[in-house]
Amino acid sequence: MATLLLHLADVDEASWARSFTAALPGHRVVLRSEAFDAAAIDYVFVWKPTPEAFDGLTNLKAILSYGAGVDALLQHPRLPARPIVRFVDADLTQRMSDYVLAHVLMHHRLFMRFKEDQAARRWVQLYPPAAWDIAVGIMGLGVLGQDAIRHLRAFGFQLRGWSRTPKAVDGVETFAGDAQFDAFLAGTDILVNLLPLTPETTGILNYDTFSKLRRDRLDGGPVVINPARGGHQKEADIVRALTDGTLRAASLDVFEKEPLPEDSPLWALPNCFITPHIAAASSEKTGVAYFARVILDHEAGKPLPNVVDVNRGY
Amino acid sequence: MATLLLHLADVDEASWARSFTAALPGHRVVLRSEAFDAAAIDYVFVWKPTPEAFDGLTNLKAILSYGAGVDALLQHPRLPARPIVRFVDADLTQRMSDYVLAHVLMHHRLFMRFKEDQAARRWVQLYPPAAWDIAVGIMGLGVLGQDAIRHLRAFGFQLRGWSRTPKAVDGVETFAGDAQFDAFLAGTDILVNLLPLTPETTGILNYDTFSKLRRDRLDGGPVVINPARGGHQKEADIVRALTDGTLRAASLDVFEKEPLPEDSPLWALPNCFITPHIAAASSEKTGVAYFARVILDHEAGKPLPNVVDVNRGY
Repeated sequence: MATLLLHLADVDEASWARSFTAALPGHRVVLRSEAFDAAAIDYVFVWKPTPEAFDGLTNLKAILSYGAGVDALLQHPRLPARPIVRFVDADLTQRMSDYVLAHVLMHHRLFMRFKEDQAARRWVQLYPPAAWDIAVGIMGLGVLGQDAIRHLRAFGFQLRGWSRTPKAVDGVETFAGDAQFDAFLAGTDILVNLLPLTPETTGILNYDTFSKLRRDRLDGGPVVINPARGGHQKEADIVRALTDGTLRAASLDVFEKEPLPEDSPLWALPNCFITPHIAAASSEKTGVAYFARVILDHEAGKPLPNVVDVNRGY
Repeated sequence: MATLLLHLADVDEASWARSFTAALPGHRVVLRSEAFDAAAIDYVFVWKPTPEAFDGLTNLKAILSYGAGVDALLQHPRLPARPIVRFVDADLTQRMSDYVLAHVLMHHRLFMRFKEDQAARRWVQLYPPAAWDIAVGIMGLGVLGQDAIRHLRAFGFQLRGWSRTPKAVDGVETFAGDAQFDAFLAGTDILVNLLPLTPETTGILNYDTFSKLRRDRLDGGPVVINPARGGHQKEADIVRALTDGTLRAASLDVFEKEPLPEDSPLWALPNCFITPHIAAASSEKTGVAYFARVILDHEAGKPLPNVVDVNRGY
């Protein structure tokens, strides 16, 4: 019999506990508000752990991460050296692709231009370019990047991909590392960030990056879409680029500080599309199904899936 | 040797003539501004024909329609009783699906809600519903409808279809005729019109139709998307429905009168997304390739493709 400790902020912990209890018959599920023997905990399921979250968990087999990104978790000051299992979820992946495609298609279809024309009651029959004349550049070729590519391919977009290490993806022109970053940007009209947040990718969405994108295909210039992490972007640079025309538009789901402060100039920019970090979320139903399966399989002697490489950072 | 007469308004007729000449070696291509023997014309390629367009064309083998929709052509007062070939084009179909998907995804992702929240600098983490909890209802299950369905299916939407006569489409709950129209609407959150314009479908997008759509799935109510024909919609009803909350939003590419008059109240509605009839257009490149093939095949004894059923209206 394994014991699972839940340590979750900002979600209904008791509801998750009930669902895990139902999904793990014969095992024990405890909340941190209950009395429990720390040394008896086999698995801890965490979201926004407090500094004391892991204290005394001396027999931990694995840390289960509610978030798909583990950048914040890896900064935890007393994180024990145990395997961390990331949440890789078809539902979350699908929702992220929904967000990416909604915004890519919106910008491909010259949404900004027609919005401006509508405000001016102006009828100008500008035809959006064919998808095959527009290049979507995906930064990050993991599960999320590859699923977005699968959807984008069906529309016929030119596809470019950039990742830390070289990767081959069918039908995608791929680039890797610092040496090929500028070449990747030079042929990209719509830039989509699906990178993990690591020290190397922090601040990668900056003015210098924006100024290297292709300018002559989309009406008014290139577009950036960021549903990954606020730490990827320099918001002062985004404001500058959206104001001086270096970027035609930006779709941002994440921010350096969340909630986005009320005095952020991003709110008021007509070419900035703000969503409040809702592109994709872990749902209780799929989360419980996924992690209950991880625990049951591991207890049956199978290896843990989707274990984070702590050196790589994801 | 066949002779093709071009009769095109609002496009560069001379450019089309050069392209047709290159694509039809050994045949003759004439412009209406040139001297020609009307009785020698085998094919006429038309867009917005004048009342005299067909006069004297006594030996016509077929009328080739630049537009994918032939509703206006069928109203021509002196239209001869010859086969009309519609333009069915993969490029045009793809562009129409791009438009449909851009707008369906935008509304599915609660674009209106986040736009309102942004204007108020309000951070509310409302998660869009899963695609499989949202039903997209397609009116019209021809080439365009079925291609849109193919793309929508990849996102996991519930799919409903309505057509004049019963049709079976894989993975789509289909409805037919007047008798099943209300049942079709009752389960639809996002209504997409891809019908041909006929006397039966004129004005089908009216207040009564909107009031029968499903209201409880999408934040704020149902949405209508019309890239087909302005004659399908009653704009006074759309204004009323967008104002009183019967509709959450509308995406309109076509209008009762085009260009949309400057005094139309639609321009100023924040929940109406106006594009100037640019969802999909016939391009010279694909148009010439398609109709040159039609002529060459027909001259070689093959049947004409995509011939309009004049009684049905499309």
